[in-house]
Amino acid sequence: MRILGIDPGLGRCGFGLIDDGKALDFGVVTTKVDAPIPERLLELYNSLVEVFEQTRPDVISVERLFFAKNITTGIVVAEARGVVLLVAAERGVPVYEYTPNEIKMSLTGYGAATKTQMQEMVREHLGLIEKPKPDDAADALAAAITCQFLYRAGPTGEQYEFSNSRRKSGKI
Amino acid sequence: MRILGIDPGLGRCGFGLIDDGKALDFGVVTTKVDAPIPERLLELYNSLVEVFEQTRPDVISVERLFFAKNITTGIVVAEARGVVLLVAAERGVPVYEYTPNEIKMSLTGYGAATKTQMQEMVREHLGLIEKPKPDDAADALAAAITCQFLYRAGPTGEQYEFSNSRRKSGKI
Repeated sequence: MRILGIDPGLGRCGFGLIDDGKALDFGVVTTKVDAPIPERLLELYNSLVEVFEQTRPDVISVERLFFAKNITTGIVVAEARGVVLLVAAERGVPVYEYTPNEIKMSLTGYGAATKTQMQEMVREHLGLIEKPKPDDAADALAAAITCQFLYRAGPTGEQYEFSNSRRKSGKI
Repeated sequence: MRILGIDPGLGRCGFGLIDDGKALDFGVVTTKVDAPIPERLLELYNSLVEVFEQTRPDVISVERLFFAKNITTGIVVAEARGVVLLVAAERGVPVYEYTPNEIKMSLTGYGAATKTQMQEMVREHLGLIEKPKPDDAADALAAAITCQFLYRAGPTGEQYEFSNSRRKSGKI
């Protein structure tokens, strides 16, 4: 199953494609910082359409959003997230969402894992020589790996006790 | 100038077209409450494309988002808002944004106006016999009226002291 992890953002949106535990592609799409937000959302939309066409995912995996740190940034991230979900829906690609805690637990078994620990585990899970760069791509790969783990655990969810908070928001 | 006010929302998204102080069209587009969010965003997108095609606006006017009341709802509204801005950007339609306070001040001269007072002033400004229904359409018309007032005030902004907080986020 080709899983495309996405780390939504307007300035930088990370993506990472995995299949059977291997990283096939990862990177970041960016938008012009000084352009108006609607124009940047369109730029993001067009870039994501390209990413979907190049990676042809069976499902996408996206971190669920919480606005703990910065509400203003959070609004823009949510607007970008709306565009990500739209692109998936237009293509009939199911969307899986996981909380930051689920992603950390899946990768490290530890809900308060640091960014460095997470990146190291992404590297290890995918058998890479170096940590994937940049951070947004590593975050996207972490979401994809989580989807692979929890998807396999299936509806019984015995291996991971996350099934209640997991939301399947596809398939069109 | 044909101004399309939009009150973004996923379940109910209000719109209202005005031109030269007259309401030409208003209403609400809705999405299926029990459908997955990506599917609803796509439904919203398709409906908005239709609204833009039918109303052919020169600019759109949208209330700026603040997450005071409910963060979870706020995330979904911001996702829907991302789709609204995308549809405008795809068509090269400039987007004007106003704070809730600017909209209340413009219509009533009073920043803490109630919903009922606002709807009454929307009715009066547009010369309607009855208050426009539903609420989401009235809110959209209020945003459109604000845009007409503040746009006319121009860059000097003498009539309304809002020019600093007004953000022009078009034109592609």
